[in-house]
Amino acid sequence: MTPRLRSALLLLSAAAFLALPSPAPADEGQWPPEALAKLGTARWGELSSRGLSLTAQDLWDGSGGGLLTAVIDVGGCTGAFVSEEGLLLTNHHCAFGAIQLASTPEKNYLRDGFVSKTRAEEVEARGGVGRVRLLSRLVDVTDRVRGPKSAFAKATSDTARYEAVERAKKEIVAECEKAPDRRCAVAAFEDGRTFQLMEQVEFRDVRLVYAPPRGVGDFGGEEDNFRWPRHAGDFSVLRVYVSPEGKPAAYAKENVPYRPKRWLKVASKGIAEGDVVMIAGFPGRTQRYLTPSAVANQEKWFYPLRSKTLSDLIAILAAEGKKDPDTALRVSSAIKGYGNGETNSRGQIEGLARNGVAARAEGEAKELAAFLAGRKDLPAAWAAAPAELEKVLAADRTGQERRFYLEEVERVSSYLGSALSAVRRAEERKKPDLEREAGYQERDLDRARQREKDLTRSLAPVAARRALAYLVAKTQAAAAEKPVRAFDETFGKSATVEAIEAKLAEMDAATALGDEKTRLSNVDAQPAALAASKDPYVKLALALHPDLAALRAARKETNGALLVWRPLYLSALEALRASKGKAIYPDANSTLRVSFATVKGYSPREAVTFTPRTSLRGVLEKERAAEPFAAPKKVLDAARAADFGTWADPTLGSVPVGFLTDGDTTGGNSGSPTMNGRGEVVGLNFDRVWENVAGDFGWSPERSRNVNVDLRYALWMMERVDGASALVKELLPSK
Amino acid sequence: MTPRLRSALLLLSAAAFLALPSPAPADEGQWPPEALAKLGTARWGELSSRGLSLTAQDLWDGSGGGLLTAVIDVGGCTGAFVSEEGLLLTNHHCAFGAIQLASTPEKNYLRDGFVSKTRAEEVEARGGVGRVRLLSRLVDVTDRVRGPKSAFAKATSDTARYEAVERAKKEIVAECEKAPDRRCAVAAFEDGRTFQLMEQVEFRDVRLVYAPPRGVGDFGGEEDNFRWPRHAGDFSVLRVYVSPEGKPAAYAKENVPYRPKRWLKVASKGIAEGDVVMIAGFPGRTQRYLTPSAVANQEKWFYPLRSKTLSDLIAILAAEGKKDPDTALRVSSAIKGYGNGETNSRGQIEGLARNGVAARAEGEAKELAAFLAGRKDLPAAWAAAPAELEKVLAADRTGQERRFYLEEVERVSSYLGSALSAVRRAEERKKPDLEREAGYQERDLDRARQREKDLTRSLAPVAARRALAYLVAKTQAAAAEKPVRAFDETFGKSATVEAIEAKLAEMDAATALGDEKTRLSNVDAQPAALAASKDPYVKLALALHPDLAALRAARKETNGALLVWRPLYLSALEALRASKGKAIYPDANSTLRVSFATVKGYSPREAVTFTPRTSLRGVLEKERAAEPFAAPKKVLDAARAADFGTWADPTLGSVPVGFLTDGDTTGGNSGSPTMNGRGEVVGLNFDRVWENVAGDFGWSPERSRNVNVDLRYALWMMERVDGASALVKELLPSK
Repeated sequence: MTPRLRSALLLLSAAAFLALPSPAPADEGQWPPEALAKLGTARWGELSSRGLSLTAQDLWDGSGGGLLTAVIDVGGCTGAFVSEEGLLLTNHHCAFGAIQLASTPEKNYLRDGFVSKTRAEEVEARGGVGRVRLLSRLVDVTDRVRGPKSAFAKATSDTARYEAVERAKKEIVAECEKAPDRRCAVAAFEDGRTFQLMEQVEFRDVRLVYAPPRGVGDFGGEEDNFRWPRHAGDFSVLRVYVSPEGKPAAYAKENVPYRPKRWLKVASKGIAEGDVVMIAGFPGRTQRYLTPSAVANQEKWFYPLRSKTLSDLIAILAAEGKKDPDTALRVSSAIKGYGNGETNSRGQIEGLARNGVAARAEGEAKELAAFLAGRKDLPAAWAAAPAELEKVLAADRTGQERRFYLEEVERVSSYLGSALSAVRRAEERKKPDLEREAGYQERDLDRARQREKDLTRSLAPVAARRALAYLVAKTQAAAAEKPVRAFDETFGKSATVEAIEAKLAEMDAATALGDEKTRLSNVDAQPAALAASKDPYVKLALALHPDLAALRAARKETNGALLVWRPLYLSALEALRASKGKAIYPDANSTLRVSFATVKGYSPREAVTFTPRTSLRGVLEKERAAEPFAAPKKVLDAARAADFGTWADPTLGSVPVGFLTDGDTTGGNSGSPTMNGRGEVVGLNFDRVWENVAGDFGWSPERSRNVNVDLRYALWMMERVDGASALVKELLPSK
Repeated sequence: MTPRLRSALLLLSAAAFLALPSPAPADEGQWPPEALAKLGTARWGELSSRGLSLTAQDLWDGSGGGLLTAVIDVGGCTGAFVSEEGLLLTNHHCAFGAIQLASTPEKNYLRDGFVSKTRAEEVEARGGVGRVRLLSRLVDVTDRVRGPKSAFAKATSDTARYEAVERAKKEIVAECEKAPDRRCAVAAFEDGRTFQLMEQVEFRDVRLVYAPPRGVGDFGGEEDNFRWPRHAGDFSVLRVYVSPEGKPAAYAKENVPYRPKRWLKVASKGIAEGDVVMIAGFPGRTQRYLTPSAVANQEKWFYPLRSKTLSDLIAILAAEGKKDPDTALRVSSAIKGYGNGETNSRGQIEGLARNGVAARAEGEAKELAAFLAGRKDLPAAWAAAPAELEKVLAADRTGQERRFYLEEVERVSSYLGSALSAVRRAEERKKPDLEREAGYQERDLDRARQREKDLTRSLAPVAARRALAYLVAKTQAAAAEKPVRAFDETFGKSATVEAIEAKLAEMDAATALGDEKTRLSNVDAQPAALAASKDPYVKLALALHPDLAALRAARKETNGALLVWRPLYLSALEALRASKGKAIYPDANSTLRVSFATVKGYSPREAVTFTPRTSLRGVLEKERAAEPFAAPKKVLDAARAADFGTWADPTLGSVPVGFLTDGDTTGGNSGSPTMNGRGEVVGLNFDRVWENVAGDFGWSPERSRNVNVDLRYALWMMERVDGASALVKELLPSK
């Protein structure tokens, strides 16, 4: 360790961790729960004058209580408890995989919707939403992870620094998980300037209670995705079950509904333009403090490549899906995911350009350099950080295209993916549990098995091998100087997509991985067993392993360097902004956050104004009896007959469907409860507008709008269209 | 002639021709000039209260005077005289062909724009805008065409009726054109219930004075076509020249600028939201009185087939255009035309569905039946008209797909088109001039020659034969029961597109039609000369002729029947509407009309509001340095530097670019001057919005909006960007 670096780390660890900003302008900011109390009386006064009748304490009391404990982590999405007996609201698109896994071509819940009128009819929700987590405790563990006495501080290489942090995190998690039914995680805030332990209770028996037909839940499909006006009924209802003793448990018939300590009330009245709201959830990732080269790389390289790759994969899967309904069902979830990613990528490209993010980053970098040059009182390491950080990032970009494709190869749903996971697991198994990589410890086995089970329902072999062939060919084309040897050996040098596909077809005929039991036994296989396997996919996975391991090793080194320089860079940036009276706040990192917002329209471009609410009237306007604008007849009939029940909004003259708010949200906020000033649920966040896709790189009062489905649309569907009156009664007992 | 039919015709001819409706609601209606005086004092009072300071007499005095005599027929578009010395304003897209014909890959006026700073630099405008016509007189000639003593009244078959009308029209035209430099036409109003002679002065020396670069004139391209908000600078400036003696003459160096009797002043101030405007021009065709089956045929058959065919043709031409810049230039005009037609077709389909035109037509048909059943005082022929009309239309739909493709074969720009025209001309030449079909008389020769000359610049042989091969294959596929024998003989039965293309390539190698002189001599060729020709295209044209002649004969019969039943149907409809206090007005028919309107936004769909004006700010928003949003650097620089000169609008804070009005317009209104309440030009109409494409089938106050370019954008371009100050001075002498 150079003396400079050592002093830098000490300076960093001496800083006030998770320094809380003064209120950001307008409704910017995704606030961690414990930050709420520190927002300041001016901000709370302002919120109260806008109609918020809750206090910071009401939301989060710091000792495991508060309204926010009803907000649930739903595997990449957010949900909220909304009844005494464990009903959980989230988006239709979050439960999409579970609805797909429960569907067959005969009982197509995806197409027709799912309505359980009694508890007995509720079915197991598999896939992502099958495990949900309730946050029970937050603890700052920065000192233990990277404090002056930590292994991190003593490490002598970037890789060692990365491993020291990972090791510390795993130790903390392991201690935490000694308690039963606990799921714990250590999250890095501010790119690793601070760390927090999140203690969660995990529930493993989640059931599907209600889902609208896809023609409602996904009305508008990819065509409307990230757009306003919006008319999707993107909601679904789940229920959490526990053992008869009230403990989290795996799915079992005798389990009973969970009775949460806190749940959100469903608002008995709707919302109106100008109302204050809160959106609580688990936003995944924002990147609001990037260096100029990082912005340029996202705009010019990453998103364009991602857009192209995903649209090619969609075309491949969609072509196979057209051939038979079973394949169509199997590929539907992947297509939906890719479609979302593809549209998102285009939105990022367009938004980064329109918002001038690159120019702004460059401007701020220059300003920062001038500021640091004039402030010799600040640590020299801060002044060095921008240039050092750019060096790390530049090195990381070497060979990034090859890496991009190889990572897609690992990710695509296929026999190879299953084999790669088994091989990596077996490799990791050689080490003591605490030294294994995250995701490959004993605690992850259960989940790995579930994935293999889910694969039985979701794998479409022909589609999978065509997608894989495409990615293999792309990898080799991108890897000119460093071809992946395993691919050359298996498919031949410079093999065409067709030749790769033909070879994969042979492998498909020979593999045993089509059998769920074989895949499950592979989850527990020892290295020797796999090494002896004759299965063509296991053999390919073994051959690929060194290349993938090398990628991961390189990434560790990069990440170790980033753990040093990103926090220093952030500290420097913070000093610059503080000098101008501005604050920084932590980027989203999949931890619980709250955003305060207003129901509000916007102008996406010159001469166009979007008002913030839609209704059934707009559903009828868009309906064209063809995907993606094909609502089911029962919905259209009820809408045309103005059979609104008590759910119509007086201003709209119809049942409200969607609304816009200027919340600070991102991916992961899907399913977030949107609450009124009294903390009652009025809707569910499910998307952002096109002009806000690149909001990940910066919030703006003009363009940052998130899209919510009005809960009255859900209640109308349940009551007037599907006759699920018991469910409505449970959600709104006062009605 | 059946007694019933005879009495029907008498009843019709006894009706008040061109019966003028009482004012239509709001700003609906495309008013013929002589209808203005009959609009009624209430309507004129209302217009005056909205800021119109002109009288009907000011616009059209009935004896060849009035402001509307400055409005010029510009070959399918509209233009207006705007200076003492014959400057003519029209759209960039109207002059597009002329700009293309004047361009070479080296001097690419299409890409770079055309700026003449002195008269000497003005270049000949060829193609459509090379001949412009000034309306000098309107005469009702109904009695002569179809009055009780006409040949029409005495005719005994539908074909004879059609021919009688055509003959009468030609006689009237021939008499009218005895005066020098006259161009005359007889237009059918109300589907042939009334007829009017239009006497026009034709000018044949028109020159290009100013055209913006395509990146301004066509900014947004097909992507923005029929859309709002709009940012195209769709304007161009021409000048009309006459002989030194002041007479219309062909292009000659010594010609001098024409000094029109009337020209429109350019407004010295811009417009504002809510202002009253007038739009004058030559709207081509509306169809507001269709029967239910006719609406259904448009919605379900015609527009879908047209959309498919045009998009296929665009793909073929565009693929060829990508191969070299010369071909790109040659196919650009056809692609633009097809693109517009294709987008229009989709808009029609969508609008017909959204506006429920079919259901409305069915509803009105039922209402009409009930009304006629209860009104035995009305002529029996009126009661019979709806059913008789439907019979005629049903018969006409037999084989319509085959006919559609054959007509496209005739129309596509190719050697075959040139040969077909020569063959047909030679056939017609066998008859006395007055008996020849319209378009094939002596008076049309000049124009035919010009078309052959233009073909030299616009024909791209490979693209043309690929388009032709596509259409030939489609014709034969659609003609299962009645294959086109000439195609079978030339290309073989069931020939593939590839085989047809190969054969056409052989023909291309052998034909002499690539030579302009050969094509020009064919224009004057006698039947015997063509019959003896060895040219493969002439031979194919001769072989095709009988099939095409049969199509035309069938169409004559249909048209003859329509001349009987459509007017009767319209009379019945008029009686129904009159009974409800509503009026009918004549469908557009390419004759001069005026629409009164307001500068006004609209809501295209739920939660979206369009405000009615755009500016340079929006140009910068849309700019993405790639087609179709690639404005030239000089424009972007001036816009970014806010170098607005005196042209900025105080409300917009920038130079105004486009504005919306609720005018009643359609194709043919392109280039129409949009005038303020004092009759000064404030803009040029150039498009309709998407929701108004199907406005041809019905005007609506909510959706009928036409798109105008603000003249201040044109003046800003000329002055600040292109330094054409003499031109600005001529347009705005007071400045």
